[in-house]
Amino acid sequence: MKVISSLKEMTLFSKKASAKGSIIGFVPTMGYLHEGHLSLVRRAKKECNVVVVSIFVNPSQFGPKEDLAKYPRDLKRDLALLRPLGVDVVFYPQAKVMYPFGCAAYVDIGGNLTKKLCGAFRPVLFKGVTTIVAKLFNIVLPSKAYFGQKDAQQCVVLEKMVKDLNFPLQVVTLPTVREKDGLAMSSRNSYLAPDERKDAAVIYKSLMLARQMIKKGVRSSIKIKSAMIKELNTVKHIELQYISIVKAETLEDLKTLSGEIIIALALKIGKTRLIDNIRLKL
Amino acid sequence: MKVISSLKEMTLFSKKASAKGSIIGFVPTMGYLHEGHLSLVRRAKKECNVVVVSIFVNPSQFGPKEDLAKYPRDLKRDLALLRPLGVDVVFYPQAKVMYPFGCAAYVDIGGNLTKKLCGAFRPVLFKGVTTIVAKLFNIVLPSKAYFGQKDAQQCVVLEKMVKDLNFPLQVVTLPTVREKDGLAMSSRNSYLAPDERKDAAVIYKSLMLARQMIKKGVRSSIKIKSAMIKELNTVKHIELQYISIVKAETLEDLKTLSGEIIIALALKIGKTRLIDNIRLKL
Repeated sequence: MKVISSLKEMTLFSKKASAKGSIIGFVPTMGYLHEGHLSLVRRAKKECNVVVVSIFVNPSQFGPKEDLAKYPRDLKRDLALLRPLGVDVVFYPQAKVMYPFGCAAYVDIGGNLTKKLCGAFRPVLFKGVTTIVAKLFNIVLPSKAYFGQKDAQQCVVLEKMVKDLNFPLQVVTLPTVREKDGLAMSSRNSYLAPDERKDAAVIYKSLMLARQMIKKGVRSSIKIKSAMIKELNTVKHIELQYISIVKAETLEDLKTLSGEIIIALALKIGKTRLIDNIRLKL
Repeated sequence: MKVISSLKEMTLFSKKASAKGSIIGFVPTMGYLHEGHLSLVRRAKKECNVVVVSIFVNPSQFGPKEDLAKYPRDLKRDLALLRPLGVDVVFYPQAKVMYPFGCAAYVDIGGNLTKKLCGAFRPVLFKGVTTIVAKLFNIVLPSKAYFGQKDAQQCVVLEKMVKDLNFPLQVVTLPTVREKDGLAMSSRNSYLAPDERKDAAVIYKSLMLARQMIKKGVRSSIKIKSAMIKELNTVKHIELQYISIVKAETLEDLKTLSGEIIIALALKIGKTRLIDNIRLKL
């Protein structure tokens, strides 16, 4: 397993691999890896000849009051987790190498897609994400790129970017990996104090409640949201940011549920912001 | 010479050529080709194994009151000009194929670079250019892309885009090709009535006057601009949009000339907007 920090070296590696006919699978991460990331790597390993994992905490997707400085980092641990999986390259660039000219050029998505759900609470997030992912795609030159369904809006946004800008690759989205009590795995779970961690299980509980209601035939968005809010409020110190029930492909709000839908929510437990969602076919 | 209209077919062609070790040279155009375009094609042919020329009048770079509808088009003539040059592929996509999902994702450049000079008069121009060129780069996958110095600001903007977003290719800028009387070749010259065409020679005259003054030691931007305006005003029906004297790399305005500079101007003769520039090393 090679660790590459140089952009040129990374691109050269990928060009050589492609010239040999290799399919390059790419898993972009911000490090502090968990089973969610590792499930992406395992799938990439199955589907591709060469697997590249990037570890880069991207400054441009954090707002000025967000957790860039304290975002957890542990390269040694990450490398130890990736080595047994047969990863070919860990791409680990420095911020000054990724943004040496400042950040003048950028990729963004017009319209509503990036302004709702998480975009409403983190206004610079998706512009930062699309820009860094476009940069990484151009450096790593993958045929397939792997993302986790936990970041549901990010997946839709990146699918849109790839289609609209004709990136020559396929976006693969894989299911959210969860802890035993249902909490979606996230590097940010490490922020939670023990009592907060316990309370956080209510997020998935509220999503399961929604699923149950839908199974029983409820189709009213408002009814489902109300029940979820009631469930979430059984726990103290939760600050709900949003619950949205939307079309899976376009993230359009649904009053009456039908087709492929995503139920997504974001909330704060103490100072930690967590997100989760489920995707259902009605 | 193949004519390809399908995006998938274009990308497949390029991937196969790259896999064989070919260097792909790319000349993006809006068609209605002139010697300026052909000089780019000839250079690409010298430096690359495979040459792709795209012909696409890009709607997204025209403002609502601009000349999209009347922009000159003549595919048959363009193909006849390209065939003898040994072009491998003419990529000729339809607008509905390039923008089938609307135009939600886009590439743009923050800061001043796209807001000054032509950007001040054509506010959607550069966002349209960076977006379409990013799309074309992702479809054609070139190693080298060729642009004419006549569009000086476009060259700087695209260099910035390629660097900031890490496109795996080299931008090559070649000198402006001129008519006998010095008028920069442009597809839009076809709009000019005979008397306007005659008058248009004053543009290059004014640039040559600036060069002479600089040779004689003048370094004051204002003095040079004043002399140019006087020269331009020897002709009737000219509506000057700007004369700018800027650093070549950053397009920063210069009061006192030094280093690599560009003297650029835009004006209207009748209804036709023309641009020109010279680049000098002091």
